[in-house]
Amino acid sequence: MGLTLRGVYAPVATPFRQGAVDLDGFSANLTRYADTGLAGVVVLGSTGEAALLDDDEADRVLVAARRVVPSGKALIAGTGRESTAATIAACRRAADAGSDIVLVRTPSFFKGHMTGDAFRRHYESVADASPLPVLLYNVTVFTGVTLPADTAGQLARHHNIVGIKDSGSDLEVFGRYLAVAPVGFAVLTGSTAAFYPALCQGAHGAVLGVAGVVPDICAQIFEHATAGRHDEALALQRRMGPLADAVGARWGVPGLKAALDLAGYAGGDPRPPLLAVPADAVATIREHLHALLAAA
Amino acid sequence: MGLTLRGVYAPVATPFRQGAVDLDGFSANLTRYADTGLAGVVVLGSTGEAALLDDDEADRVLVAARRVVPSGKALIAGTGRESTAATIAACRRAADAGSDIVLVRTPSFFKGHMTGDAFRRHYESVADASPLPVLLYNVTVFTGVTLPADTAGQLARHHNIVGIKDSGSDLEVFGRYLAVAPVGFAVLTGSTAAFYPALCQGAHGAVLGVAGVVPDICAQIFEHATAGRHDEALALQRRMGPLADAVGARWGVPGLKAALDLAGYAGGDPRPPLLAVPADAVATIREHLHALLAAA
Amino acid sequence: MGLTLRGVYAPVATPFRQGAVDLDGFSANLTRYADTGLAGVVVLGSTGEAALLDDDEADRVLVAARRVVPSGKALIAGTGRESTAATIAACRRAADAGSDIVLVRTPSFFKGHMTGDAFRRHYESVADASPLPVLLYNVTVFTGVTLPADTAGQLARHHNIVGIKDSGSDLEVFGRYLAVAPVGFAVLTGSTAAFYPALCQGAHGAVLGVAGVVPDICAQIFEHATAGRHDEALALQRRMGPLADAVGARWGVPGLKAALDLAGYAGGDPRPPLLAVPADAVATIREHLHALLAAA
Amino acid sequence: MGLTLRGVYAPVATPFRQGAVDLDGFSANLTRYADTGLAGVVVLGSTGEAALLDDDEADRVLVAARRVVPSGKALIAGTGRESTAATIAACRRAADAGSDIVLVRTPSFFKGHMTGDAFRRHYESVADASPLPVLLYNVTVFTGVTLPADTAGQLARHHNIVGIKDSGSDLEVFGRYLAVAPVGFAVLTGSTAAFYPALCQGAHGAVLGVAGVVPDICAQIFEHATAGRHDEALALQRRMGPLADAVGARWGVPGLKAALDLAGYAGGDPRPPLLAVPADAVATIREHLHALLAAA
Repeated sequence: MGLTLRGVYAPVATPFRQGAVDLDGFSANLTRYADTGLAGVVVLGSTGEAALLDDDEADRVLVAARRVVPSGKALIAGTGRESTAATIAACRRAADAGSDIVLVRTPSFFKGHMTGDAFRRHYESVADASPLPVLLYNVTVFTGVTLPADTAGQLARHHNIVGIKDSGSDLEVFGRYLAVAPVGFAVLTGSTAAFYPALCQGAHGAVLGVAGVVPDICAQIFEHATAGRHDEALALQRRMGPLADAVGARWGVPGLKAALDLAGYAGGDPRPPLLAVPADAVATIREHLHALLAAA
Repeated sequence: MGLTLRGVYAPVATPFRQGAVDLDGFSANLTRYADTGLAGVVVLGSTGEAALLDDDEADRVLVAARRVVPSGKALIAGTGRESTAATIAACRRAADAGSDIVLVRTPSFFKGHMTGDAFRRHYESVADASPLPVLLYNVTVFTGVTLPADTAGQLARHHNIVGIKDSGSDLEVFGRYLAVAPVGFAVLTGSTAAFYPALCQGAHGAVLGVAGVVPDICAQIFEHATAGRHDEALALQRRMGPLADAVGARWGVPGLKAALDLAGYAGGDPRPPLLAVPADAVATIREHLHALLAAA
Repeated sequence: MGLTLRGVYAPVATPFRQGAVDLDGFSANLTRYADTGLAGVVVLGSTGEAALLDDDEADRVLVAARRVVPSGKALIAGTGRESTAATIAACRRAADAGSDIVLVRTPSFFKGHMTGDAFRRHYESVADASPLPVLLYNVTVFTGVTLPADTAGQLARHHNIVGIKDSGSDLEVFGRYLAVAPVGFAVLTGSTAAFYPALCQGAHGAVLGVAGVVPDICAQIFEHATAGRHDEALALQRRMGPLADAVGARWGVPGLKAALDLAGYAGGDPRPPLLAVPADAVATIREHLHALLAAA
Repeated sequence: MGLTLRGVYAPVATPFRQGAVDLDGFSANLTRYADTGLAGVVVLGSTGEAALLDDDEADRVLVAARRVVPSGKALIAGTGRESTAATIAACRRAADAGSDIVLVRTPSFFKGHMTGDAFRRHYESVADASPLPVLLYNVTVFTGVTLPADTAGQLARHHNIVGIKDSGSDLEVFGRYLAVAPVGFAVLTGSTAAFYPALCQGAHGAVLGVAGVVPDICAQIFEHATAGRHDEALALQRRMGPLADAVGARWGVPGLKAALDLAGYAGGDPRPPLLAVPADAVATIREHLHALLAAA
């Protein structure tokens, strides 16, 4: 495919209503994103509470996304599962639903056994069988494992593996992925805190939870940085800091959903066992959001 | 129900043949366990590669188990999922399949958000809705989270929560679970290395991977310890050490499956991304197994 | 020397008065310990805030200890330093001060470089040069490194290395030290929470912070366990649990010093940057101490 | 003082000859640094194996440094100790030896007790008593503790605390230090891998082990970045990557000393328990060094 991964992608939330996926709210969110500077969306990522959805729900979410994500923007589907076979099946369903790319999180349950060799075989099997291009996904904060850089470098030579998303803010780790990336292999950061510095380091783009709340601010940081307007990029990155911290490290997905509500998107409560954030957290998030929007 | 959790349980492996669950081999294994000193089996636990099975496979495994596990032994079904709702659904299916008890692993994907309060609400919802008694399950080595002891103590007062399995070998952690356990609440260790010491500390029983390979040796250690024959218990525990280490910390589930093959059970290869152990590991495991059986 | 490491040792606190070491209080504490069931004392251990003393203070403490520790009890001196040469110098000074044995903590500053080989060379150099028998000391909670069991097994064959103290409560780790210990090589636990279970597992003794507060209760647990009175040992271990937890995992050395004050020993405030425990912690510790003494 | 912390500082190695500090080699190294673009040197840092020196050696090293470090460059002395009192004493000795600034590593032995409050009191006592301005020093990789950003923010208001060095490459952590830094408070990175990205993020300078080997390349990266020549900065950062990784994460201080030898500085073997790097590591380091110098 001709898609090049470049720019800012929003890993979109999955809103719920009375326990079920709120497809209307979900579609409305994505419709709004279509008019922003985002390069695309990630559906069924960590932020999308994919770990808390069953396969039928996941399929319906992808179908709904396809209806509203315009062809000029990438629809990336999270399809990682613990077993290689289940991951392949999810990739095929994502293709059937019309997704553009699959984002495949590292398996991690049997942590001690996830060696470089095990990761390599897993991803090669997935990439061989997947009808869609594969984006590797390292998210140590949730999985407790790290895809070795040399394994990523080997996998980068597979014709159907097009890039990697690393969610961490450790730029020594991120730099190792950049160092093994051949031309055309995308290295995306998932860290809002390290977004602009990672772009300086050579990142081709980012998948940022906060981009679901303030998509154009994230897109502007990317544009500033890639156009060499470093002062503007840094100033905007700093202004975004308090909100990003609140809906990231501090209150996570529940905080992000509260921010979505405050920004006029469909957010709502997360699915249990996640708990909604307390009222004082909402107040803090509101304050940070308003301060950011007032300055922007 | 009148079942009291006491004694040794085997968390049974799920054998595969050409990628599919080998129900014949599985049933044959459980049939053999019926004539041992085991108090019961855990189906669909970590050792059973439950993380790598889909729901249909899981259901068939439980139905098969019910056919061969005699009524005098407990059939415990692993039903933990990341979402509270999916966990409840799995508990109901386990009940439909005729299981006796459900073993519910802590959710763990959103690690930073799994507070004591989040765990408490999750388990209360599950226990309220589950047709079967609930056994809590803390397995930090795989999940990266730890159920706080005071939360376990609160949950222990729920009428439908009957005990806890802690897989760790840290007896300070295990001792805290023992300290908060009311009378009748079972505290089981999942650590083979700490099996006999945990019994000394007050454990009511154990769920030991190696019990699938040498069930009667494990049962004998339990009998010796509870009958006050400490020298015999310790001697047997020590003899079991090398095998237990090989199929536990060192080679994990793939090693255990190799040991099952060597002991005449259906073991076979694990499901990818798990890799089968190399030939030299099989040789070492064989040596440890033979040394143990020769001495026993 | 004819000393065999067996029984309970107290790692004694270093009391301070107006910032200086309170040698009178220290000597008074040790004089009282002489009439207990303790097998000896460890001076300048972690509990003794050795990390916060300079070499002159350390020397004076050892000299003072030698004056009051009777010949029938072991005087063990903590002499671990980061450099091999400084450790050897400390061992020589401990010998000059009349100590019986040196306890040598693993170096740990350059964590990533502390391989089994680095540990082996360090301890061999120390043991070759030390005038006193060496007790290895693994204390992962403070150092962040773990002495590999196979390295410990190699070192155990050195004529001047007589045992190991492992402070952890992970009995899988502890069991590996036991498994590599030749006859006559002492394996001591430093975990109060795992004290009795570790004795069941084969530990030859223990170095327990709480033994400075309730020496005879700790000695009784050892006597009960080694005499086969398991019910009595476990009952006493359990009664000691709340106090041990308060002056161990929860409030550490500052908590232990508060408990010493409450038990009539010289405790006092720790040296900064350690902070004294707050008043409510003292109240809790008092409660646990009185409950234990009332029951004993 | 009028010194502003800005630019690149080399944390210089301490060469040894036959077990003793090689003051001649040390002075020769620093004499060469005087003619480079370095803004100054850190003596007695982690790289200087300060943990392996005794106080007399440390004093002599500082005196020697003062003789050759020109007045236009900062002489920063590492003075962190575990106890507050010993740290203050070391700061006074550093002042007596003519140092300009003291770099004070977080105490860390009693990890669980190093709360924000404990850190705050420690650093306030040190800064109150130190004759020299204090640079905070967070080095989690060696200490296992992290100075909380809000505590750093409180300490930044102390008149005698002039900045912080954070050795980590996690730019989320680093960004929090930047966010709490008042005007004039220097935030320096100690991560070579994250050097240029950290400058983009707002770092005022860096303390880089590799700057002892290739001082002018490091200084050029700083100059490029601060002058807005981002492409040049990134290109040079990337070329430096393999060498930086080899003498940093991979082979640490022993690797750095091998690189110093190769670059014509006095390096030599580290002090035990550190082991010299093997011959093949030296070959790899040589290769990376030559490739870097050939391209520069």
